[in-house]
Amino acid sequence: MAEQKATNITWHGGTVTRDDREKLLGQKGVTVWMTGLSASGKSTIAVILEQMLLHQKKHAYRLDGDNVRHGLNKNLGFSAEDRAENIRRIGEVAKLFTDAGVIAITSFISPYKKDRDAVRASCKPGEFIEVYVNASVATAEQRDPKGLYKKARAALAAGKGMGFTGIDDPYEAPDKPEIVIETESVSAEEAAKQILAYLDKGDYLAA
Amino acid sequence: MAEQKATNITWHGGTVTRDDREKLLGQKGVTVWMTGLSASGKSTIAVILEQMLLHQKKHAYRLDGDNVRHGLNKNLGFSAEDRAENIRRIGEVAKLFTDAGVIAITSFISPYKKDRDAVRASCKPGEFIEVYVNASVATAEQRDPKGLYKKARAALAAGKGMGFTGIDDPYEAPDKPEIVIETESVSAEEAAKQILAYLDKGDYLAA
Repeated sequence: MAEQKATNITWHGGTVTRDDREKLLGQKGVTVWMTGLSASGKSTIAVILEQMLLHQKKHAYRLDGDNVRHGLNKNLGFSAEDRAENIRRIGEVAKLFTDAGVIAITSFISPYKKDRDAVRASCKPGEFIEVYVNASVATAEQRDPKGLYKKARAALAAGKGMGFTGIDDPYEAPDKPEIVIETESVSAEEAAKQILAYLDKGDYLAA
Repeated sequence: MAEQKATNITWHGGTVTRDDREKLLGQKGVTVWMTGLSASGKSTIAVILEQMLLHQKKHAYRLDGDNVRHGLNKNLGFSAEDRAENIRRIGEVAKLFTDAGVIAITSFISPYKKDRDAVRASCKPGEFIEVYVNASVATAEQRDPKGLYKKARAALAAGKGMGFTGIDDPYEAPDKPEIVIETESVSAEEAAKQILAYLDKGDYLAA
């Protein structure tokens, strides 16, 4: 590098820190990890939560199948190994957003406790908020907005199991999630408010 | 889901858009992709650029070896396939940050044109700014702050090539980078200002 010219500001004073970014945004970076069956309501709640956060001028970003499966994780299939790698990568990206000071909201079934716990273990304390979006298989199957349960049942009946969570693959509920949403008695809006209240109480919505 | 209660705000009005996020942040999401030899000055320039952006209250985030190689890409080695996958994943993450409205600054050697061009091709027009941080191998090798060139030369002399860029692996310079930094005549601070001016002129620093 050529010699630095004299300026009024010392740009070599150090790198921009996470604290600097959080002060700029007026919030703390955190990962809100939604887990639950297909059709449990994860995405609906995530979308409303994101709207509520924007309304409070908070910077949130949702990671979901739409922007992850067809991009970062498009080279992963549905083997046990690939499913674990899928969740690992999502966790790593959520951590980068968290480090950037953003409120990262992930919305994936993430059925295996082991995979979710690995993400939690790699996060700093208080930076991984597990939200268990609870619906029974019966309820989720009754909702079935995309006909996925119907398809999975048909495949199973034809002897071609898909490994569909809740039908022929297990969903392992979290033992100690930070937040439990009982979707059979709570609306999506109330659920989002419940998460927002947690964030507010935990001082995540201030720098 | 239980029935929605009446509220003054319609939370189901739609999802938060990229435009919403950009308005909140007062900037446009973009990927600033720094490429160049080891010791060319990429990271130094990236750090200063990030400071300058913060000074203008802009939200930037740097992706580099420190936060990517040991996290998202820790299961990748240095085979040709893994090097390509390394750059692909970094590109996908930078695109997520760009979509989130953040100014993503990537700082990786990224020696192969094919890999960088694949990232560019997957980005929307104007959202991938390639910055060629130009230094000759001789200059980079003379700087060698981490002794990496020395190590690579020694390995090569011992008949154990490392595939080190510039020594026993090629660096393919960009054909048409948006920005060229001539580090042998421009200081890191001037280089950062050059990139900042490009962002300003391109209207990235306003929503």
